[in-house]
Amino acid sequence: MGNPDYAYPSTNVDCPHRVAIPPPQPFVKSLQYNLKETFFPDDPFRQFKNQPLSRRLILGLQYFFPILEWAPRYTLDFLKADFVSGITIASLAIPQGISYAKLANLPPILGLYSSFVPPLVYAMMGSSRDLAVGTVAVASLLTASMLGNEVNANENPKLYLHLAFTATFFAGVFQACLGLLRLGFIVDFLSHATIVGFMAGAATVVCLQQLKGILGLVQFTHATDLVSVMRSVFSQTHEWRWESAVLGCGFLFFLLLTRYFSKKKPKFFWISAMAPLTSVILGSLLVYLTHAEKHGVQVIGNLKKGLNPPSFGDLVFVSPYLTTALKTGIITGVIALAEGIAVGRSFAMFKNYHIDGNKEMIAFGAMNIVGSCTSCYLTTGPFSRSAVNFNAGCKTAVSNIVMALAVMLTLLFLTPLFHYTPLVVLASIIISAMLGLIDYEAAIHLWHVDKFDFLVCMGAYLGVVFGSVEIGLVIAVAISLLRVLLFVARPKTFVLGNIPDSMIYRNAEQYPNTNNVPGVLILEIDAPIYFANSSYLRERITRWVNEEEDKLRSSGETTLQYVILDMGAVGNIDTSGLSMLEEIKKVMDRRELKLVLANPGAEVMKKLNKAKLIEKIGQEWIYLTVGEAVAACNFMLHTCKQDPPKNDSEAYSNV
Amino acid sequence: MGNPDYAYPSTNVDCPHRVAIPPPQPFVKSLQYNLKETFFPDDPFRQFKNQPLSRRLILGLQYFFPILEWAPRYTLDFLKADFVSGITIASLAIPQGISYAKLANLPPILGLYSSFVPPLVYAMMGSSRDLAVGTVAVASLLTASMLGNEVNANENPKLYLHLAFTATFFAGVFQACLGLLRLGFIVDFLSHATIVGFMAGAATVVCLQQLKGILGLVQFTHATDLVSVMRSVFSQTHEWRWESAVLGCGFLFFLLLTRYFSKKKPKFFWISAMAPLTSVILGSLLVYLTHAEKHGVQVIGNLKKGLNPPSFGDLVFVSPYLTTALKTGIITGVIALAEGIAVGRSFAMFKNYHIDGNKEMIAFGAMNIVGSCTSCYLTTGPFSRSAVNFNAGCKTAVSNIVMALAVMLTLLFLTPLFHYTPLVVLASIIISAMLGLIDYEAAIHLWHVDKFDFLVCMGAYLGVVFGSVEIGLVIAVAISLLRVLLFVARPKTFVLGNIPDSMIYRNAEQYPNTNNVPGVLILEIDAPIYFANSSYLRERITRWVNEEEDKLRSSGETTLQYVILDMGAVGNIDTSGLSMLEEIKKVMDRRELKLVLANPGAEVMKKLNKAKLIEKIGQEWIYLTVGEAVAACNFMLHTCKQDPPKNDSEAYSNV
Repeated sequence: MGNPDYAYPSTNVDCPHRVAIPPPQPFVKSLQYNLKETFFPDDPFRQFKNQPLSRRLILGLQYFFPILEWAPRYTLDFLKADFVSGITIASLAIPQGISYAKLANLPPILGLYSSFVPPLVYAMMGSSRDLAVGTVAVASLLTASMLGNEVNANENPKLYLHLAFTATFFAGVFQACLGLLRLGFIVDFLSHATIVGFMAGAATVVCLQQLKGILGLVQFTHATDLVSVMRSVFSQTHEWRWESAVLGCGFLFFLLLTRYFSKKKPKFFWISAMAPLTSVILGSLLVYLTHAEKHGVQVIGNLKKGLNPPSFGDLVFVSPYLTTALKTGIITGVIALAEGIAVGRSFAMFKNYHIDGNKEMIAFGAMNIVGSCTSCYLTTGPFSRSAVNFNAGCKTAVSNIVMALAVMLTLLFLTPLFHYTPLVVLASIIISAMLGLIDYEAAIHLWHVDKFDFLVCMGAYLGVVFGSVEIGLVIAVAISLLRVLLFVARPKTFVLGNIPDSMIYRNAEQYPNTNNVPGVLILEIDAPIYFANSSYLRERITRWVNEEEDKLRSSGETTLQYVILDMGAVGNIDTSGLSMLEEIKKVMDRRELKLVLANPGAEVMKKLNKAKLIEKIGQEWIYLTVGEAVAACNFMLHTCKQDPPKNDSEAYSNV
Repeated sequence: MGNPDYAYPSTNVDCPHRVAIPPPQPFVKSLQYNLKETFFPDDPFRQFKNQPLSRRLILGLQYFFPILEWAPRYTLDFLKADFVSGITIASLAIPQGISYAKLANLPPILGLYSSFVPPLVYAMMGSSRDLAVGTVAVASLLTASMLGNEVNANENPKLYLHLAFTATFFAGVFQACLGLLRLGFIVDFLSHATIVGFMAGAATVVCLQQLKGILGLVQFTHATDLVSVMRSVFSQTHEWRWESAVLGCGFLFFLLLTRYFSKKKPKFFWISAMAPLTSVILGSLLVYLTHAEKHGVQVIGNLKKGLNPPSFGDLVFVSPYLTTALKTGIITGVIALAEGIAVGRSFAMFKNYHIDGNKEMIAFGAMNIVGSCTSCYLTTGPFSRSAVNFNAGCKTAVSNIVMALAVMLTLLFLTPLFHYTPLVVLASIIISAMLGLIDYEAAIHLWHVDKFDFLVCMGAYLGVVFGSVEIGLVIAVAISLLRVLLFVARPKTFVLGNIPDSMIYRNAEQYPNTNNVPGVLILEIDAPIYFANSSYLRERITRWVNEEEDKLRSSGETTLQYVILDMGAVGNIDTSGLSMLEEIKKVMDRRELKLVLANPGAEVMKKLNKAKLIEKIGQEWIYLTVGEAVAACNFMLHTCKQDPPKNDSEAYSNV
């Protein structure tokens, strides 16, 4: 190291390091390896190795039912902590459940049913210790808007209800299949930026829907986009009820105040956790005492007492509705998974334990399949509820069991108490929960760090707000995928320069103090060479060479003689790419330039070898590092007039 | 270089090269740069720079009409060569045109019309000197099958004809738009492997369709898949006509024989070029003399004399047919473009001149728009005809003009001669042309070099043969895109080892003689870190670390202390990737491991800086090369007990 001039020790030139062609592997073995890396990157069978059958059976059962693993170690201290957090989340789950069921155009009691059975299933099968199971606003809204296109919930409530169960069933099947088939990575295609934009958009849309409740309107549009909702609201200004509005704004103010307070002093998290239930009790009392239900304040009305009735027989598998239910199930299922898994992972990060995405998917799937047969609709792990659970100090999934039992007691004995609960309070609860989902700071961060991610985020947001939830999602995923494709279709190419006093060559733009090597153009290609970029790379490399020759010509310096391609960042090459390299080689030959490759990786060497391109380029023109390649070029430039090496005389015809 | 032990000169450790953060660029400037690289990689405005307006105008005209550029330099020698090749391709164009028009269920005369006007347009606007313009079998078949779904060509021939013109019009508009909007790279998404499989599939399907002509069947299925055709053929064995079959097989044998002969002796290329016209003449004479048309041998019948009638008024822009025509136009337009541009590029490669893909698209588009208004259907640059043109020694696009004039003379005076031409001869001509498109050697080459490309190729082939042309295309493009996505979603990660007697670190699998560095795990990531792979990379890196620790533990060597990530091949990182790195950093801290980055590129450093991750990782833990990073780690491992550097004491708590 550290030779500023080009008088390298001759060993480097005479005998540089050889670029190895990796030993050939049988096709089946490499296929096996690739399939394992694609579907089992976390190596789940590791612990099964070298174990007797009975032990394997137990491990397998523990894989699907993690409760078997941690229950034996459960202690009384854990129970105390889980009991407190379970009761806390139950107090949040009851009003939220009712609110979100209204949002999904389903009977309010379904919100309670959905907070009873699914948490029990999750407690047995889930691997997160902090997730609190329940319904979520976005999936509820999606259910309403997608099923609403097919069946009117007011005109045909029974069919609508059955469709909702069916959609939940398909969502569960789809989630479980993703997990069983190890396709969990599909959820990864919803990038962080997509989720920020999508959640904010959905929250905006959900808030807009609450204008119906806040203003006490009876007629309301079924569309969810901003324009339709605003038109619907302002076309009936004479129908606005001030009683509703005052009550709604009052409770909203109360809820936001408690949230602000709890955020300032995290010790008092339970204040904001209890606020929704307090609002419901206060609101109900107020209505009961003032008989406001007779003055335009709509109330929940009768809720049936009793536990979840079975609903397996209600699933609709007949033709005209099947596709709607399937579509709704798949889309809501993916959204619910994305939220649930992201939430589970975040809290696992905090507490330093591991969550297996595919295992979680199986748990979510089972929870929704069982839920759809017991009068529940789509559930997942909502962020707000899980955060309260975490803050309340839960230790294991037992907090979900405690919550389920509290909801069970409510279902058995306390439902009549909700008769006078005003709908406007539910609207306030939803709005206050939704405002927390609009993470404008994250959007600003995206703008600062990565403009493309910001575009994805805004695409999702505007798509949801001005189009629909599905449109927003499709836009965001399409832009995200376009980015990946663009990365490959338009790879970066750099000119490399020599970092002074070293044999290191780096991007001349990033390191402005690098020196050019006279007569040698060094290019780095920053992506795999695939069909999608081979034409581009051909054009771009030619352009680099043209520009370099123009520059040298105008400055009257030495002519260009060597073009070194640094292949270090080229992860793979396909047959289109190989043809491109062959063409480049021909073009260079015709222009009396020598093509030199530096640092091709294992995959690339394997392909070059199979396509017999190594012979065409010449094994002696493939170097392990750019430094060695430059050294060799310089050696030729300065010495070959006296003594050209044999078997390669063509290369020096222009020296 | 060349220090086998780790006693590096202290300058490397105390003052290694700093990794530069590229100077910040204004957003608009970097956007401009990226847009230029995406849409104008070939820098078409280069020659316009610093020119007066009049010169720019001339250059602009020359851009759209390359004839203005080369016509002034045209010589008599060129004309001689172009005349010979023009006449040769005309002799091929006339029978092929008639055959392909029959394949498209269009009146045979359209094949002649389409060999008259479009070549004239291309001669003015095209930049290839070797392309011979004409209709192609695959696009003809596609037209028949796609339009046939909407309108039956036998029951409503007029509407069908008008729809074909409309589809051609849309194909032209689409092609020209792609060129004008610089979206030529869309054609690149049809990879070489896709085209091999697709062409072979289409050729198979076209050959199957010829069974109708060869066996003299009157009823035939409209489907193109193997199963339907075979069922249709074998359900009417009693309708087979031996006269047809004998005639067809005879001519097919003759055509294949001449092709074989010309392939053996390229000097006699004209034998196979003239063979189709010879077959037509021989076949017509035979029918005329034996009155075979009365014995079950179908003939072309009357062809109208005269030049192309205008057809602008026939374009159908009304609702029920518009979508069909649009869809057909876009799909056939893309296929035609892909073939035409690939053919143009191949011959330009041979003769060492340059073809501008976007300019060619504009020429193809103009040719088809004009064609659709003058009773032509979709034309492009077919491979077979262009190869004959090239072999015949054409010099410029004037050979297209000669061909067009020859076809014009035929249209004006010679059409009655085709009255007795038997359809079975046309079928033989098509089959013999199609057999040349089934490039099984290319498929074998794909299998040997790249299994995934072989999969794409077979997907296209089987999709076309057993499904339909569109299905095959969709399958192939989907598999190709999946490959690009998989490359990013499941990036390769390697353990690097030290190449003996150097400071170079390379993939230990590719270079089995590399040495591990005790206490240091060096990982290379071989793709950009994007949302699609950030979860995977988190799992995979954790697994590498686990495996390394297990290995060290079982061997009782030193414990793992440093994890170096070689970011040299990481071209970019998005916000999901940044969060992943931050999490990895936290996990490493918790396991008392030190995370070290080596050689992050310009984009990655920019993002790390903006996300403030450089401070979190520590500027002192980011090195320019893996060698320097390892040297620093070793220095710490061996010396820090005496003298830990300040501000970084946490890192050594476990040493």
